[in-house]
Amino acid sequence: MTLLVTGWVAIDDIETPFGKVNNSLGGSATCAALAAALFTDVRLLAVVGGDFPDEMRTALERPRIDLGGLATVEEAKTSRWGARYHYDMNTRDTWYPELGISVEWKPVLPPHWRDSTAACLAAGHPVDQINLLRALDAPRITLVDTIKMFIDDTPGELRETLRAADIVAINESEARMLAQRPSIAQAGRALVADGAKNVIIKLGEFGAAFISGEDYFVAPGYPLESLVDPTGAGDAFAGGLMGYLDQANEITAAEIRRAIIYGSTVASFCVEGFGPCRLLTLTRDEVETRYREFRMLTHFEAEI
Amino acid sequence: MTLLVTGWVAIDDIETPFGKVNNSLGGSATCAALAAALFTDVRLLAVVGGDFPDEMRTALERPRIDLGGLATVEEAKTSRWGARYHYDMNTRDTWYPELGISVEWKPVLPPHWRDSTAACLAAGHPVDQINLLRALDAPRITLVDTIKMFIDDTPGELRETLRAADIVAINESEARMLAQRPSIAQAGRALVADGAKNVIIKLGEFGAAFISGEDYFVAPGYPLESLVDPTGAGDAFAGGLMGYLDQANEITAAEIRRAIIYGSTVASFCVEGFGPCRLLTLTRDEVETRYREFRMLTHFEAEI
Repeated sequence: MTLLVTGWVAIDDIETPFGKVNNSLGGSATCAALAAALFTDVRLLAVVGGDFPDEMRTALERPRIDLGGLATVEEAKTSRWGARYHYDMNTRDTWYPELGISVEWKPVLPPHWRDSTAACLAAGHPVDQINLLRALDAPRITLVDTIKMFIDDTPGELRETLRAADIVAINESEARMLAQRPSIAQAGRALVADGAKNVIIKLGEFGAAFISGEDYFVAPGYPLESLVDPTGAGDAFAGGLMGYLDQANEITAAEIRRAIIYGSTVASFCVEGFGPCRLLTLTRDEVETRYREFRMLTHFEAEI
Repeated sequence: MTLLVTGWVAIDDIETPFGKVNNSLGGSATCAALAAALFTDVRLLAVVGGDFPDEMRTALERPRIDLGGLATVEEAKTSRWGARYHYDMNTRDTWYPELGISVEWKPVLPPHWRDSTAACLAAGHPVDQINLLRALDAPRITLVDTIKMFIDDTPGELRETLRAADIVAINESEARMLAQRPSIAQAGRALVADGAKNVIIKLGEFGAAFISGEDYFVAPGYPLESLVDPTGAGDAFAGGLMGYLDQANEITAAEIRRAIIYGSTVASFCVEGFGPCRLLTLTRDEVETRYREFRMLTHFEAEI
């Protein structure tokens, strides 16, 4: 089983109340790929510029990540992202010190990757996302994430892409905005009514909600005892979720619920370090231990 | 078993994106008492002015609510509260058209109510709260809620009161502020380290977290399919929770977890109408049905 992961590989400057890092490996695809590789084999489709440091590439070289799709455009710059978090960590200022090559580059699926069994497409232009979905031969499960920029700039294309994916992952504020509904439940229902098959609304520290035509699942947030930097947590969530689903024997409602808890578990590790830093050392055993803790933390009735 | 409930009985003006009400029955004690009376016998200790309408008093006259402690100060005005909610319902502007008698009135426990088996003290001056806690003979379980005003104005007294209660209930933004910690988990741990026995951090639409020295429980939010007005939901949560606990045979960690889900369930009904309106018609059967749904919505592993 192989999971296609797309999105940004970037260089980040991040400041939180607990410290700061400069020129650090970042990007949505970086976080999603590292998270997914805890569960399955990953194919990373992304781009960097000629300035992308060798040591960052080395950090991505891992047994379960195929970097054959990490393009280098020598004459271009790697995209750079900056963020400064406020004290409550729920709000941040962001900026782009260098928009870089990720903005204009069009991801094209290598022909020998068309047999990928799943896809996790981090936020990107919805036309690029739908083209990638269509280029896959027969994926068992696909996920598309998006951000405010595409809700604002390309709402029509975005809606078409969200209908084409098996799972839509979206932040709660963006879900409310896109669906124009005040509650999480109503926003999720509205997106399903608009054609999305399955919607996962990411609630950050507060967990996630899953809405489909047939199921509704609410997962609380894992207690963040050592929160350092929320950057990349949403991508780690999506990557962990899709990594788990890609290696599941069957994709059932029960497996999707477990996958959401696995995704939350991986995300809860991600926030313990700057950017994807904690994911670089995270092991499957650590994930399994915390997954079991998660069950104990959420349990309230023996019989079901 | 009898639960003492204190707080405000007030007259509200509320505007949400879905409508507005004026001169409507409201107040923290109103919501908490109505919620608790679904489970146990309630003693309501609060004050109104001579202008308090008969029909509002009639609305509070219920078999399981003892109004013997609802004082009327004829020459004073009932406290009035106003709120206008923004579209996402998570932010609101509030004001006090009439500060009224609740602000200056000092609640005194009637001697024949000292045998109350539990107490649910909605936000109020921490000195009043601790005096009430001390006036009780031998309560099995007590809960104290608070708000930003008391964190700002009387932090020392507040900390003493929070140490005296069995359960501290507090909103997440207020918990972060009081504990000066960025995550829910860290804020809860810090309050426990400061002497609180059990802390429940209320996450609004996102559920609740329970933190003690021995246990940690995270409850997601029940999907709010028909959200009309969040006013009073936190008080309904506390009232439902304490009502359930008061009638429990034993107060165990498992019962506290169930109580949190019962509280969330009652709160999820509360938001379906303006102020306490939905609570006036809510039945225990409706609560039980939704509690069972809640279990299905949160379940992700059969074996534990």
